[in-house]
Amino acid sequence: MNEVDVIVVGAGFAGLAAARALAAAGRSVTVLEARDRVGGRAENGRFSDGQWIEVGGQWIGPGQDRMYQLVDELGLSTFPTFDDGRLLVQLAGKQQRMGSHKGAVPRLNPFALVDLARGLARYNKLAASVDLQQPWRTPGAEELDGQTLRTWVERNLRTPEGRGYFQVYAEAVYSADAGDLSALHTMFYAKSGRDMETLLAVGDGAQQDRVDGGSVRISERMADELGDRVVLSCPVRTIRQAADGVTVITRDGTEHRAARVIVTLPPTLAGRLEYDPVLPSWRDQLTQRLPAGSVIKMHLVYDTPFWRERGLNGQVGSDEGPVKITFDNTPPGYSRGVMLGFMEGNDGRRYARRTPQERRSAFVDCLVRYFGEQARHPVEYLEKDWMAEEFSRGCYGAHFTPGVWTAYGAALTEPVGRIHWAGTECSAVWNGYMEGAVRSGESVAAAVVGALR
Amino acid sequence: MNEVDVIVVGAGFAGLAAARALAAAGRSVTVLEARDRVGGRAENGRFSDGQWIEVGGQWIGPGQDRMYQLVDELGLSTFPTFDDGRLLVQLAGKQQRMGSHKGAVPRLNPFALVDLARGLARYNKLAASVDLQQPWRTPGAEELDGQTLRTWVERNLRTPEGRGYFQVYAEAVYSADAGDLSALHTMFYAKSGRDMETLLAVGDGAQQDRVDGGSVRISERMADELGDRVVLSCPVRTIRQAADGVTVITRDGTEHRAARVIVTLPPTLAGRLEYDPVLPSWRDQLTQRLPAGSVIKMHLVYDTPFWRERGLNGQVGSDEGPVKITFDNTPPGYSRGVMLGFMEGNDGRRYARRTPQERRSAFVDCLVRYFGEQARHPVEYLEKDWMAEEFSRGCYGAHFTPGVWTAYGAALTEPVGRIHWAGTECSAVWNGYMEGAVRSGESVAAAVVGALR
Repeated sequence: MNEVDVIVVGAGFAGLAAARALAAAGRSVTVLEARDRVGGRAENGRFSDGQWIEVGGQWIGPGQDRMYQLVDELGLSTFPTFDDGRLLVQLAGKQQRMGSHKGAVPRLNPFALVDLARGLARYNKLAASVDLQQPWRTPGAEELDGQTLRTWVERNLRTPEGRGYFQVYAEAVYSADAGDLSALHTMFYAKSGRDMETLLAVGDGAQQDRVDGGSVRISERMADELGDRVVLSCPVRTIRQAADGVTVITRDGTEHRAARVIVTLPPTLAGRLEYDPVLPSWRDQLTQRLPAGSVIKMHLVYDTPFWRERGLNGQVGSDEGPVKITFDNTPPGYSRGVMLGFMEGNDGRRYARRTPQERRSAFVDCLVRYFGEQARHPVEYLEKDWMAEEFSRGCYGAHFTPGVWTAYGAALTEPVGRIHWAGTECSAVWNGYMEGAVRSGESVAAAVVGALR
Repeated sequence: MNEVDVIVVGAGFAGLAAARALAAAGRSVTVLEARDRVGGRAENGRFSDGQWIEVGGQWIGPGQDRMYQLVDELGLSTFPTFDDGRLLVQLAGKQQRMGSHKGAVPRLNPFALVDLARGLARYNKLAASVDLQQPWRTPGAEELDGQTLRTWVERNLRTPEGRGYFQVYAEAVYSADAGDLSALHTMFYAKSGRDMETLLAVGDGAQQDRVDGGSVRISERMADELGDRVVLSCPVRTIRQAADGVTVITRDGTEHRAARVIVTLPPTLAGRLEYDPVLPSWRDQLTQRLPAGSVIKMHLVYDTPFWRERGLNGQVGSDEGPVKITFDNTPPGYSRGVMLGFMEGNDGRRYARRTPQERRSAFVDCLVRYFGEQARHPVEYLEKDWMAEEFSRGCYGAHFTPGVWTAYGAALTEPVGRIHWAGTECSAVWNGYMEGAVRSGESVAAAVVGALR
């Protein structure tokens, strides 16, 4: 029986950041991690030649101050996402090359252009009005939360091109269909990372930079600092509270005691633990309503990054799938060309039932449509279906379905006795990103330090 | 280590009906129930004088053929829900008495009347078009599933009275807010029980009859027949599949072996078990998206059923809460008058955080508004918050949030190896009702018997 001040459940970015802050405050802490690795939804894969590649969350960008600081503190470095050349946009069946700067809008027929511009302006104005700390207090919150993003788009945009643009936004940013999402939630989320354009952009946006060696190294370095405070391969099953402390029991029956516990799991998974006494209804019903997104992250490797020779940066945004979003994800110094693609929302759900061979082939077909016959013959394929991961059960993050922010929002971060909740889904700033995870972990750690006094 | 043909998880109506069918087919079966009682979401409470009262699911009505047959087979009987007199409707601030026959429409100003009639006609027409076996194949399914019921109502009704009527429908039938629900789901659900009017009605509707002694007696009689095949107080934690069978492990570590297992838990709770190997992503992501409704069921007891003297049947449908739906729930032969009320959807969620005393007081205030000062002084109060129940975590049933039927519907009843899924949420007929639970249990039992051959 170990006894510490605080047990942290989960060694993702939130859990490690919380533990680090607690250790820095002189508190004893144990981090219990279900997997045999740290990093949560960030992970490195390897191509057959040993080259690392990010198979989970990977980008950081301006405004994510804690991430850049952490990279620095931990002796790591970043490099810019490849962004030289033009990107491809395909909307309503028409493909075009366009500038890749933030907020660039595709060339469309005048009617579609006005429609899209007006829709974006309306959306951004509403998003700017969201109360980040208490989204349910936003003016008109009930109305915005009572409809899906799809409904909002249908009400506010008329052209297939304009609507297609928002559909790409829904999938690329939420790995969900526009019909799954509370409109209010998407506005909250956009504002939490500044605005919709920032979430979509590479330069000056959320995809601007990558971490040398892969983003997972940030978590690995944090774990190195924490040393044997981090215990791997011990999934937590039960959290038992009593007047004098809390007992956390792992699946193998080991009991850990502490004064406080911080649960950093994604909401659905946090809801699946056994709690004794059981959680209050508002917390339990909240976690019934925050499903994880649906995404399969895929890489195809080519002998060379041939698209670059044609003035393309490898980025695609298309309203025709199953791979609608691509990036040039070639690691620095790597001789071959690496194309990254996502199957998201309903595409991801449909293709989850297919074989890796079928997914590879569908990805190749999409790349041929975007980049021509040169894309026909990749030399390697690597995929990661995050929905299939026992300890994530979806990516990138959880989304609020309609009605949930207004009915349950207050329960999201409210401690239950000695149990505190952290994780990127709990963050009012950069919700859903590694930055949000770190901020949430650190802010909950500060609250717990206060409570321990 | 017990070895049987089939293990059934859950001794609610679905589980007991399945076990009964399996036993009748000569198969050995064990039912593992988490609670210390059978019946699931049906349960009896007691007033201080010992009188039974249904604190969970209670009504059956025409079209629920299996329920009436079961009542008969098990030597039980039904009695009609009290329905003599007029019911009270309050919409947009105006209260009126109206006939209580099925499909009765309140007297409204001509504009509101036309609006409501037109909205109901459109809704019923769409509901009638739903493909009950494969709702995702309904014409226009994506569009209907991509919006909330609230959005559908805003698009199709214009008057506060007409919209209020649908809001009452959402709460009374789904114990949810209209903004929480997929419009397609509500249409599927209405058709699965015939139509919206049937779900709302007492006479010739889903609330027509009650069971003498309480509906839970049906489950108790089924359990009596099954004898020691039913094991109480043993929550299942883990389901492990192998090539030659399945092992079900309870929280106390007991292992039960069988050829097949039928899980009858509500979807959210089914998703919280540990599965080895883990479930495929489509099944897991489905259960992340089927939250339970939100309801607190409340009874106030009066010296007499005073409302009857005034020609009222005790039923209220109001768009002003927190108690918007009431019934005269006086058991037959009981000298006192029993008023039943529901706090549903956002009312239930808000009042879940209050004290029983505050809920009682809010209920009394509503009854005074509906029935006058005579309602001011009840002699007893009894409540059941189904959201707080560890082994239900909400009632009446689960609802599909937007996008879920079209993206995940096929995974709802699809077995995963040796694991089969049953429960009222799996039924194409009377989904959400005891009838649906029994039908689902029996039909899955038949499939399992086939698979065992």
